[in-house]
Amino acid sequence: MAAIKVHGIPLSTATQRVLATLYEKELEFELVPVDIKAKENKKPNFLNCLNPFGQVPALEDGDLKLFDSRAINKYIADEYAGKGTRLAFGDNKKKAIIGVWMEVEAHQFDSAASKLTWELALKPVYGRVAPDKAVVEENEAKLAKVLDIYDSRLAQSKYLACESFSLADLHHLPTIQYLLATEAKKLFYSRPHVRAWVADITARPAWCKVLCHVEALS
Amino acid sequence: MAAIKVHGIPLSTATQRVLATLYEKELEFELVPVDIKAKENKKPNFLNCLNPFGQVPALEDGDLKLFDSRAINKYIADEYAGKGTRLAFGDNKKKAIIGVWMEVEAHQFDSAASKLTWELALKPVYGRVAPDKAVVEENEAKLAKVLDIYDSRLAQSKYLACESFSLADLHHLPTIQYLLATEAKKLFYSRPHVRAWVADITARPAWCKVLCHVEALS
Ligand SMILES: N[C@@H](CCC(=O)N[C@@H](CS)C(=O)NCC(=O)O)C(=O)O
Ligand SMILES: N[C@@H](CCC(=O)N[C@@H](CS)C(=O)NCC(=O)O)C(=O)O
Repeated sequence: MAAIKVHGIPLSTATQRVLATLYEKELEFELVPVDIKAKENKKPNFLNCLNPFGQVPALEDGDLKLFDSRAINKYIADEYAGKGTRLAFGDNKKKAIIGVWMEVEAHQFDSAASKLTWELALKPVYGRVAPDKAVVEENEAKLAKVLDIYDSRLAQSKYLACESFSLADLHHLPTIQYLLATEAKKLFYSRPHVRAWVADITARPAWCKVLCHVEALS
Repeated sequence: MAAIKVHGIPLSTATQRVLATLYEKELEFELVPVDIKAKENKKPNFLNCLNPFGQVPALEDGDLKLFDSRAINKYIADEYAGKGTRLAFGDNKKKAIIGVWMEVEAHQFDSAASKLTWELALKPVYGRVAPDKAVVEENEAKLAKVLDIYDSRLAQSKYLACESFSLADLHHLPTIQYLLATEAKKLFYSRPHVRAWVADITARPAWCKVLCHVEALS
């Protein structure tokens, strides 16, 4: 029995974010599927023991229980600092710059990227409903502005926070991967530094292992 | 000349979040006002040197330049760990639980609380427009659900993450303070553990110092 358990589903962007980190750190873990269709995540057992907000992913590491993909990833990076890819840094200034770009992902990038992922990638397949054009247009415009800033940043620095890959980059992977299969890919491909960064981070072996979970479903 | 400079405005919730942390840590700093009305934050100097997203606050600490209130606060907590109120912890498990509740503030609480702050507290005063009732109703319902979970949590634990005050609590202060002056105060006052927590954190001397900046304006 693995000490680390991830409660989640491979199609969930937030679950994928945690799986990517576990693979980067070369940690053994068990993915415990949550039956979202049967609303298992809204039942007392899940709410009381794993996440009172009823969302995936949740993590168990021995006795410790955590939820929220970004909080889980920071914990894994700190607790397993010595394993796999280095994702935590002792230097407060370097840590602070990575922290800034993690907040940029969460507050500037993710809201537009998540809405587009839902409209363009998930809703047509799982909801069998066409995307809402007004929502798509609004969020493509928002994402374009964010990616203009990323393109300038990535002209100066190989990765968003620094010269090496960090959680600030990793946290973008799930939504970017979904969007590359939609019309929104143009937003990434038309900006040369963003394009190179996307090619680099989506080709990481740890990320390819996450995609195997998704492919196993289809 | 203070080594720490905060570029921002006292009315901004994100600026207040950083000021609260600086006062908790008993650090000297200079608040450098940004003329938002004159769009100083959208001018090349601000965008290139302080924050490419054109928002306040931005921090300078010697050579280091950071933006985003939550990233700035984590840096201050780490860099000045030995000063003032203890806000950073070496133990990875404790740090992880604080991290979870910081993400809860950012992803569950803040979107509803910020929208209500705008509609009920800021728009009527600065925009001279009445609140949009549908937006208020939708976000009061969202916030109520979040606060139900907070009330259960705070029945077991004095503060959100643990028995001591942490950044997870502090990050809530600016929007809570604005909302206590609006009809949305009922959401906080009707839940006994939330009510006691709100009374406790809004009475902290560091927070009262932040409010002096706001009062100095009126
Ligand atoms: N901020 C949370 C968001 C988690 C989240 O939105 N999870 C989705 C799947 S990606 C979920 O559980 N949805 C089901 C629901 O909300 O009922 C995180 O990053 O973990
Ligand atoms: N996530 C950012 C948000 C900053 C933010 O929204 N700042 C507002 C004031 S509270 C601002 O600068 N507004 C002016 C603008 O966006 O033009 C943070 O926490 O620092």
